[in-house]
Formats: sequence, C-alpha cells, structure tokens
Amino acid sequence: MKTYLDCYPCFLRHGLDAGRIAGLSESQQKRVLNGIMKVLQEMQPEATPPELAQIIHRRIREMTGGADPYKEIKEEQNRLMLSIEESLKKEVEEAPRPLVAALKLAGACNAIDMGPTRTWKTPEELIHQLRNPNLDHFEERQLLDCLTKARNLLYVADNAGEIVGDKILLSILKREMPIDITVAVRGAPILNDANVEDAIKTGIDRLGNVITTGSDAPGAILSGCSQDFMENFETADVVIAKGQGNYEALEGCKKEDLFFLLQVKCGVVARDLGTSEGKITLRKNRPGL
Amino acid sequence: MKTYLDCYPCFLRHGLDAGRIAGLSESQQKRVLNGIMKVLQEMQPEATPPELAQIIHRRIREMTGGADPYKEIKEEQNRLMLSIEESLKKEVEEAPRPLVAALKLAGACNAIDMGPTRTWKTPEELIHQLRNPNLDHFEERQLLDCLTKARNLLYVADNAGEIVGDKILLSILKREMPIDITVAVRGAPILNDANVEDAIKTGIDRLGNVITTGSDAPGAILSGCSQDFMENFETADVVIAKGQGNYEALEGCKKEDLFFLLQVKCGVVARDLGTSEGKITLRKNRPGL
Repeated sequence: MKTYLDCYPCFLRHGLDAGRIAGLSESQQKRVLNGIMKVLQEMQPEATPPELAQIIHRRIREMTGGADPYKEIKEEQNRLMLSIEESLKKEVEEAPRPLVAALKLAGACNAIDMGPTRTWKTPEELIHQLRNPNLDHFEERQLLDCLTKARNLLYVADNAGEIVGDKILLSILKREMPIDITVAVRGAPILNDANVEDAIKTGIDRLGNVITTGSDAPGAILSGCSQDFMENFETADVVIAKGQGNYEALEGCKKEDLFFLLQVKCGVVARDLGTSEGKITLRKNRPGL
Repeated sequence: MKTYLDCYPCFLRHGLDAGRIAGLSESQQKRVLNGIMKVLQEMQPEATPPELAQIIHRRIREMTGGADPYKEIKEEQNRLMLSIEESLKKEVEEAPRPLVAALKLAGACNAIDMGPTRTWKTPEELIHQLRNPNLDHFEERQLLDCLTKARNLLYVADNAGEIVGDKILLSILKREMPIDITVAVRGAPILNDANVEDAIKTGIDRLGNVITTGSDAPGAILSGCSQDFMENFETADVVIAKGQGNYEALEGCKKEDLFFLLQVKCGVVARDLGTSEGKITLRKNRPGL
C-alpha cells in the first residue's frame, strides 16, 4: 500500500509517541520530528508506510544508543497473553468449528498493537475483544480451501503477545491438517513486533520452524527481506500475513495464495480494504492490484 | 501559548483538511503538506499555533487564487445560529441570572469551529451542547467584578455562527451595565473566523463599534494587529477574547483585565489550562506566565 497523505500526520504522532516511550528529551523528540518531516518531503511516491516507520524507529534507536524501547512492553504483552492462553484455547476447542474460531481469535489478537491508536486500554477490554471479535469480510472459506490443498504454510507474525493467539491457531491447524509450518518474525527490534526471543518465550517455536524477515521493518517489505525469508515466501503453498504493517508491505504483490489477517486500525487502511476502523478482516491478496 | 510538539501532527491534519475544503488536487495537497513541514522545521521555538495556521491558510488561498474556501460554511453557520437566536435568547432571559447564562451560552457557541476536531455533527447535537454547556473553571465572578467597574469592553470574536451567541451576551450586558462595547473580528478570511460581513449579517454591529484585528491570523497575534486594534486593546478596561486561537495568541501577554472564554478543543490546550478536552472555560489572563 502506498503512503497516503493522511498518513503524514500519523507518522508525526507515531514518531512522537515512540520517542516518548524511548525516553527521549524534548529536544531529541523535536529532532525526531524534524527527521520524519525531512523523510516525508523527500520520499518516493510509492514508498509504503512500513518503510517510513522503519526509518523513524532506526533514528530513535540511534538516539537511545541502540536499546529497544519496547522491550518491557513486549514482555508484559507476552506475559498477559500467556496467562490467559489456556482459557482462550479451551473456548476455541469448545466452538463448533475450532479451526475457524482459532482464526477469528488470532485475528482479534492483532489488537495488541503499539503503532496506530490502540482500541483497548485494560487487559479486561482486550479479553472482551478477543472473545467477541468484530469481524468483517472474513474470507475463511477461501483460506481453508487453500490450506486443505497445501503442504506447507508460511505464517508471517506481527506483534509480541499476539503470537500467543497465533500459537493457538497453529496448534489446531497442525492437529487438523498434515501441513508443515514456518513462522516468520521480525529480524530486529521494531515497535512491539515479535522477534525470535518472543517466539521462544511464548513457545510458538514448538509448532514450526522459526525464521525471521531478516529486516527491522514493521512489515515484510520484500526488497528488504533476507534470502532465507524470500525462499520461504516464494515456495510456500500458502502465506498468512498478520497485521496492518504486513498488509501495507505485501498487498498487491505477486504471491497468489497469500492471506491478510488483521485488525484495521486507521481510516486509510479501512478505505483501502473497503471496511471500517476496528474491524477484524481476512482477505486474499489480489496480485497486481 | 508556544507551539508544542503535539501540535505538529495536528498542523498536518489541519492543512490537509483545509486543502480538501478548498478543493485542492492531491498534488496541491502534497505541496501544502510539504510547505507546512518546511515551516515547522524552520520555525522559531516561541511561535504560537495561530502564527503557523496563518501561514498555512495563506498558502492554501494562494493556491486557490485568493478565494475564501470557508465562505459557504460560514454562511451556513450564520444562518443556523440566526434561526435559533430567538429561542436561545428566550432561555437566557428566563434563567435566574441572565447575564451569567448568556456568558455560558457564548462560551458554548465556541463549539462552532472548523479548526481542531469538531465536537458536534448535526445542528441538533450543537443545540443540545449550547443548552447544556459542559463547564469547568468558569471564573464568571471575576469577570463580572471587572465589568462592573469598567466603562468600556473590547470583545475579540472568534467564529462565524458563534457571534450570534456573542450578540445575545452583548445585548444583555449592554442592558444591565452602562458600558461601551467594541467588537473585533478578523481582518481577512481565515478558517471560519468571523469577518466584518459576518458581524453585519448577524447584526452584532448594532451593539457596538466593529473593528478588525487588521490581520488574517486565526487569533489576535499582537505583533500582527493593526494600530487601531492595538489602541483599543491597550485602552480597554476589560477584554474578552473568544476561542482557542485567541487564547493561544494572547495568554500570558501584559494585559491585566483580559479574560479567555473558550471551548477546549485539544489535549495541548487542555494541559495548558489544567482542564480536559470539550470543557467550556472562562479564565483571567495571568500576565507574564
């Protein structure tokens, strides 16, 4: 997805939030904003939002000496989700179609975000959302058809915490279908996106081979991904890409059996997807669009 | 009030909204955003938000050949308020203290804004707000004390439509106190701020001498105001300045008996005033703060 003009104010707000989470001084925050504005003025028209977010967060990390400002937030999110994993899994197992229920749960877990405005404040609100996902355009039949024929799946994860929901989905999928699973996480700290250590801490690594995108972008921008990731991406029979960042980076790319599972978190993506903010949606990629 | 870093994203959103209201093409909107970012990068640290808004709107008017993009919006707002003027006035007259009720009404009318996010969508919602003002820190006693001793008042108006509420206040004030009234409106089109033609259309000119700030800024930035305005400002026994733009431009200036009457429309001003968004507040200036 290209960067729309409506994304510009959002990038400044995002950079300011991130700078504050990183503990930058006001003059450093101002330098971050000036840097973002310089990038926005000079950017190529086809640049995607995750490319810009990558630049913004690199600059913030440089200013903080390379530390990961979201480390504690991610640990808290993993902890919270692990503490309710069993009860969520039980609900999914008791649903009439556990695999579909797990897909909806995994989509709802995309609410655990730090980028655009969060739609929940307390753990209770989050749990309520996970149990009552606000769905729209949920193409589960198309995805299940593809999965039935597939031998392997590449699952491109998004956030820490959220991957506990992904783990529930993949454990049920693995039980119901004879499919090889590869889970891709980000190659370096970026926002609250899941890295290898989050995959290990939450135990999703026990369900499939864990690789990384090889990049510190908050979305799998193919031109910046490692050869290992690209080989997995190109040879996967099915790809499920979680979250808005992966949607923004991958929508319209050549891959046929690629599905986006996300919560829509801003008006720009809502318009792009023909839905509204807050909805959990599952869409098949439309190559070349 | 200085421009806070939180104002930066808001300026881009504001510029984009204004560009769209003015009917600019996408590439023109992009030029507006680039221009705003250039200004923000180069601005003096003490520049106030209305100074930046002035620059943004000048640029948009240049691009549209000098037309006023808010002309129709202002006419509609004047029409709406004139259509309910009599019923609002009747309610105020029937209140136990009509002058205080009129002050609250005039404050509530500041909801008729086009700058930051509007807190109403339909005329019904607006009327409900006008009749049930959400007040906080309403220093009416201090203002009434000053007015009782004063011989003349300078009333610095804010928006079109809103000035019908100002007119109701000034008519009751004039009846209850022997005071000379001067009403200042903006010197040129800027946002939906009231100009001389709005003063005449709504009949507020029948209650006092109408002057202008001599400027196209959406707030009375003293360094940009005309000599006529400055003389009125300096010699006025009491000044009432309406709206967030006038607050941002004038708070902390040397004038002693200066009162701000506004609806708080963003988190930055809310913090600056120690209140919360949406509140209608009346505050005495604190010179030098």
